[in-house]
Amino acid sequence: MEWNVYLAGEIHSDWREEIEEGVAKENLPVEISAPVTDHPASDNVGVDVLGEEEKDFWKDHKGGMINAIRTRTLIEQSDIVVVKFGEKYRQWNAAFDAGYASALGKKLIVMHPEEHTHALKEVDAAALAVCQTPQQVVEILKYVTVKE
Amino acid sequence: MEWNVYLAGEIHSDWREEIEEGVAKENLPVEISAPVTDHPASDNVGVDVLGEEEKDFWKDHKGGMINAIRTRTLIEQSDIVVVKFGEKYRQWNAAFDAGYASALGKKLIVMHPEEHTHALKEVDAAALAVCQTPQQVVEILKYVTVKE
Amino acid sequence: MEWNVYLAGEIHSDWREEIEEGVAKENLPVEISAPVTDHPASDNVGVDVLGEEEKDFWKDHKGGMINAIRTRTLIEQSDIVVVKFGEKYRQWNAAFDAGYASALGKKLIVMHPEEHTHALKEVDAAALAVCQTPQQVVEILKYVTVKE
Amino acid sequence: MEWNVYLAGEIHSDWREEIEEGVAKENLPVEISAPVTDHPASDNVGVDVLGEEEKDFWKDHKGGMINAIRTRTLIEQSDIVVVKFGEKYRQWNAAFDAGYASALGKKLIVMHPEEHTHALKEVDAAALAVCQTPQQVVEILKYVTVKE
Amino acid sequence: MEWNVYLAGEIHSDWREEIEEGVAKENLPVEISAPVTDHPASDNVGVDVLGEEEKDFWKDHKGGMINAIRTRTLIEQSDIVVVKFGEKYRQWNAAFDAGYASALGKKLIVMHPEEHTHALKEVDAAALAVCQTPQQVVEILKYVTVKE
Amino acid sequence: MEWNVYLAGEIHSDWREEIEEGVAKENLPVEISAPVTDHPASDNVGVDVLGEEEKDFWKDHKGGMINAIRTRTLIEQSDIVVVKFGEKYRQWNAAFDAGYASALGKKLIVMHPEEHTHALKEVDAAALAVCQTPQQVVEILKYVTVKE
Amino acid sequence: MEWNVYLAGEIHSDWREEIEEGVAKENLPVEISAPVTDHPASDNVGVDVLGEEEKDFWKDHKGGMINAIRTRTLIEQSDIVVVKFGEKYRQWNAAFDAGYASALGKKLIVMHPEEHTHALKEVDAAALAVCQTPQQVVEILKYVTVKE
Amino acid sequence: MEWNVYLAGEIHSDWREEIEEGVAKENLPVEISAPVTDHPASDNVGVDVLGEEEKDFWKDHKGGMINAIRTRTLIEQSDIVVVKFGEKYRQWNAAFDAGYASALGKKLIVMHPEEHTHALKEVDAAALAVCQTPQQVVEILKYVTVKE
Repeated sequence: MEWNVYLAGEIHSDWREEIEEGVAKENLPVEISAPVTDHPASDNVGVDVLGEEEKDFWKDHKGGMINAIRTRTLIEQSDIVVVKFGEKYRQWNAAFDAGYASALGKKLIVMHPEEHTHALKEVDAAALAVCQTPQQVVEILKYVTVKE
Repeated sequence: MEWNVYLAGEIHSDWREEIEEGVAKENLPVEISAPVTDHPASDNVGVDVLGEEEKDFWKDHKGGMINAIRTRTLIEQSDIVVVKFGEKYRQWNAAFDAGYASALGKKLIVMHPEEHTHALKEVDAAALAVCQTPQQVVEILKYVTVKE
Repeated sequence: MEWNVYLAGEIHSDWREEIEEGVAKENLPVEISAPVTDHPASDNVGVDVLGEEEKDFWKDHKGGMINAIRTRTLIEQSDIVVVKFGEKYRQWNAAFDAGYASALGKKLIVMHPEEHTHALKEVDAAALAVCQTPQQVVEILKYVTVKE
Repeated sequence: MEWNVYLAGEIHSDWREEIEEGVAKENLPVEISAPVTDHPASDNVGVDVLGEEEKDFWKDHKGGMINAIRTRTLIEQSDIVVVKFGEKYRQWNAAFDAGYASALGKKLIVMHPEEHTHALKEVDAAALAVCQTPQQVVEILKYVTVKE
Repeated sequence: MEWNVYLAGEIHSDWREEIEEGVAKENLPVEISAPVTDHPASDNVGVDVLGEEEKDFWKDHKGGMINAIRTRTLIEQSDIVVVKFGEKYRQWNAAFDAGYASALGKKLIVMHPEEHTHALKEVDAAALAVCQTPQQVVEILKYVTVKE
Repeated sequence: MEWNVYLAGEIHSDWREEIEEGVAKENLPVEISAPVTDHPASDNVGVDVLGEEEKDFWKDHKGGMINAIRTRTLIEQSDIVVVKFGEKYRQWNAAFDAGYASALGKKLIVMHPEEHTHALKEVDAAALAVCQTPQQVVEILKYVTVKE
Repeated sequence: MEWNVYLAGEIHSDWREEIEEGVAKENLPVEISAPVTDHPASDNVGVDVLGEEEKDFWKDHKGGMINAIRTRTLIEQSDIVVVKFGEKYRQWNAAFDAGYASALGKKLIVMHPEEHTHALKEVDAAALAVCQTPQQVVEILKYVTVKE
Repeated sequence: MEWNVYLAGEIHSDWREEIEEGVAKENLPVEISAPVTDHPASDNVGVDVLGEEEKDFWKDHKGGMINAIRTRTLIEQSDIVVVKFGEKYRQWNAAFDAGYASALGKKLIVMHPEEHTHALKEVDAAALAVCQTPQQVVEILKYVTVKE
C-alpha cells in the first residue's frame, strides 16, 4: 500500500523539504502532496487566470477558490494530513485545513512550537500526534507504514 | 422546519446575543447553539472534571477534548454554521470549526472585519456569505427561513 | 411519518399553490418547502444584505450563494423533490436542483410540457415520475403517503 | 496522483479537443472523460440496443438512462467537473450534471458566455471557478495539478 | 425513542395486521409502515395517475417507479425492516427490499416457511433474525425496544 | 479508466461466458467479476471449511455468509451490476443483489425473459436498462466505456 | 436539542442508575439508552424467541444477533457513547461497542479503573474523555449540554 | 482485483505468518496488512517519538494514538478484516478493531478457541465466518478471491 500524506500549513520555512528528504532517505511508501507554496502565484492565481478585479475581496476570493480545487481534493485523497503552524502569521488556512481533514476522518498530525499549545488546544484535540519537528513526522510515517 | 444554527468563533464580544435577539424579535424558526463562552470554565473543564495535570499540554488537551464533545456534535447537528473572527487573538479554533463544518457540507456564513480579508481568503472561499455584522446574519437567516 | 416535499423550478405560475391546496384538501402528512418565489427579492438579496457591487457577476454571485443556503438545505432535508420546467426561460436552476437532488438519492418527480420531452431526457431519466399537472403530483403524494 | 476530469455540457463545438490538446501539451497528470458526443448515437442508443418504441417519450427515456450509466459513473469517479454552457440550446443536461457533481462534492468549473451570467447564477454559485475559454481551464488544471 | 419498522414482502395474508395488533397490545414505541397492499391499486397506479400505456412493460414500469417513491423512502427512514416470504409467488420484490435494506445497514428480520431455507440462504445470511410467525416478530420488537 | 462489472444471478446457463467473450472481442476496458458458479461448492463451502452441521439451516447459513464475503465486496467494488433472472428457480439471491447494488448507487442492468415483466417490475424500476440477451449487455458496455 | 446518550459495557454494577439519577437531578436534556441488562434474558433471547439449539454456538449466535438489533441501532442513534469496563469479566462486547461507535464518529467517553490503563490504551486513544466514576460522566454531560 | 486483508488481534503467536504463507503458496491476489507486532516498539512508540511522560496514562495515550494512525487507516483500506482472540490477555483492542471494522461494513472473519464462544458472542454475531485455525482463513480467502 502507498500512503498519501498531505502537508498543510506554513509556507515560509523548508519543513516540507525536510520531510520529503526523510521519506526519500528511508525509502518509505509515501506519496507527498502540498498546496502551492509559491506565495505570489498563490495570491494572484485568481486574477491571473480569471481576470482582474478592482476590489481586493474578489481578487482574494477568486484566488482562494482556485486554491480550494487543489487543497480540498488533495486532502480528500490523503490518508494522513500533517498541519504545521509557524511562529509568524495567523495561518487560519492551516487551522481550516485541520478542521476539514478531521471531519473527513483523516489521521491528523499537528506540528507547532510549544508556545502555541494553549491557543491551538482545539486543533491538537483532533490530532493523533502533536510534535515539533519534521524528523518526528518522518519517524511517525516510518512507524506507521513499514515497521513490522 | 426548524433550522439549527451554530455560532462558532469569537467569545469576547456580545455578537451571539445580538443574533439571538434579532432571531427572537423576528420570531424565526431557528434554534441557536454555541460553544461554552465562559472562558475560564472552558479552559479548565478538563482538569476540573478529570483531575489535575502538571503539564499545560495535557491540561489543555483534556479540556480541548471535552469541548470537542460539545462543539463537534452541535456542528454536525446544524444546518448553518456562522463563524466570527474578531480583532484580537488568533482564533484558530474558529477556523478549525469552519473547516470542520465545510467538510460536512454545512452552509457557512463568515463574519470578520474587512482588514482580515486577505488572511481569511481560504475560509471565505468556503462560505456562502461573508459579512461584518450580526444584523446581516439575522437578515440572512430571515431570508432563508421564512421569506416567501 | 411526515413527508418533506420540496418544490423546485418555475416561479412564474401558481403551480405551487395548486399543490399546496391539494395537499391541504386531502389532509396529507406532507410539509412543503420552496425557494423564495419573490423574484426581485431573490435577485437582489445578495446586494441588499451584503452591500452593493458594481459588476453584475458579483451581484448575482452574492445572491446566488445566499439562495443556495436555503435551497440546498431544503433539498437535503426533503424526501421528495418536485421539479417543474415551464414554457419560458431557460431554468437552468431547475435542472441544477434536479441533479443535486438526484445525487443525494432524493425521490424525483419532474413536471414539464410534452414539448420538452427530448430536451429534458437526461433529467427525466433520473425521475421516478414524469407528469404535467399539479393534480398528478397531489395524486402521487396521496398514494405514497396515505394509501393503504 | 492522476487527476480525473470530466467535461460535461455542450457538444456542438470543439472545446473538449482544445482542453485535451492543452493538457497533452503541458503534459499534465490528468485523465479526461466525457459523455458520448456523437449526437445521433446518443439520441438513439436506447432504441438501437433495447428495441424500438412508438412513443418518443420512451425512446428518449431508454436513451437517457443508458447515457446515465456512463455520465453518472464518470462524474462519480472524477475529481473535477468542467461544465460548458454554449450559446444555443437549453442544455438542461449540463445544469443537471453540475447539480449532480456539486452534491457529490466534486470541484466544479463552469464555462459560459458572459451573457448568461444572470440565468446561470445558481450554477455559478456552486462553482470554484467561472470562466469563458478552454485555455483558462487548462491554466487552472496546470495550477492545481503540477504548480509547486 | 420511537422505532420505525417497515414490513416488506407478501401481501396476500394478514401477517401485517397480526404484528400491528401485537405492537398495539404491548404498547410498544414502534411506528409501522408498509407498501400499498391494495394489489390492483398498486399494479395500476402508474397508468392511473400518469396516463395509459399500450405496452405492459411501460405500464408496469410507471407503476413500479411510483411504488419505489414510497418503499425506498420508508425503508431509508426505518430502523428495522421485516421481510416476509410467503408460499406462493416469486416475490422478487421482497428479496429486492431485503437487499436494499441490508446495504443501508438496516436491521433485517426475515420471515419464511422452513421449506424455503435453502433457496433463501443468501437473504437469511444478511438477517439478524430468521423466524416463521408474526408473534416472533412482536417478541423481538418488544425485547429490542422496551426490555430493561 | 477500467470499469468493474459484476454479473449477478442465474448460474445455470452460459450467459456470463457470452458477455466475457463479447468484452474480450471488443477489447473493452472492463473487468468482470462474478459469484462462485460451481453450484455444489457454493452450497457446501460453509460446512466444508467451518465444519459439519446437523441442521440444514446452519449448513446453509454458514455457506450463505461465506458467499456474502465475496458477493458483497465485489458488488461494492463495481461500477455496473448486471443481474440475470432465468426461467427456472426463484432466484431470490439475484433480486437481493439487485436491491443491494441499487441502494449503493450502482448502475443496474437487468436481464430477464419478457414473461417475468410483471413479477419483476420493482426490480426493473431500479434499473437503467432492461434487456434479454448477453449481446445487448455487451453493446451497452461498449457504448458506455469506449464510444466517443 | 435533546442529546442521546448510550451506556455500553459492564452490567454487573449500578453505574447506569447513578448516571440516570445525576441526569434527572440536574434536569439535563439527555435521553439515555442501554442494552438489556437482565443477564439471563440477554443470554437466552435467541432460543427463547427463535427456538432451541443443541449447540451452544448457535444458541449464543441467535442471542447475540437479536441483541445486535438493539445495540447497533441505539449506538447509531446516539450522540455520545459511554463505555464502562469493570473489574471482572473480559467484556469484549464493551470494546466492540467502543470500536463500533468510534467508526461512526460518535463521541466516546470511556470509564475504567486505573489498573486497566495499559490494556485499554487503544480504546482510550479513541475517547474524548477517560474517567472513573458516574459522577464525572454526569459532570461532562452537564457541561456539554447546558453550560453557557 | 487485489483484495486487502487486515489481520487484527493477538500478537503472541505466529498465526499471521501461517496465513501469509498459505496465501503465498496458493498465489492468491491478497495484500495482507497488520498492526506493528513488535510489542515493545508498539508500547513505547509514543514516548520514543514524541518525548517522555511521567504518567503511564499519557505514555500509553501517545502510543495508542500513533498506533491508531496505522490501524484505523489499514482497516479503512481493507476489504476483509480477520480478528484473532488468543487464550491469554484481555485483547480489548482486538474487539475494538472488530467493532470498528464492522461499523465500516468490512467483511469480518473471527478466530478464537471454542472456550470463548459465550464471551465473544456479540463479536461473533457481527462476523461472516467464525473459525479456529489460520488454514481455515486461507481456505476462505481462496474461495472468495479465486474460486470460479
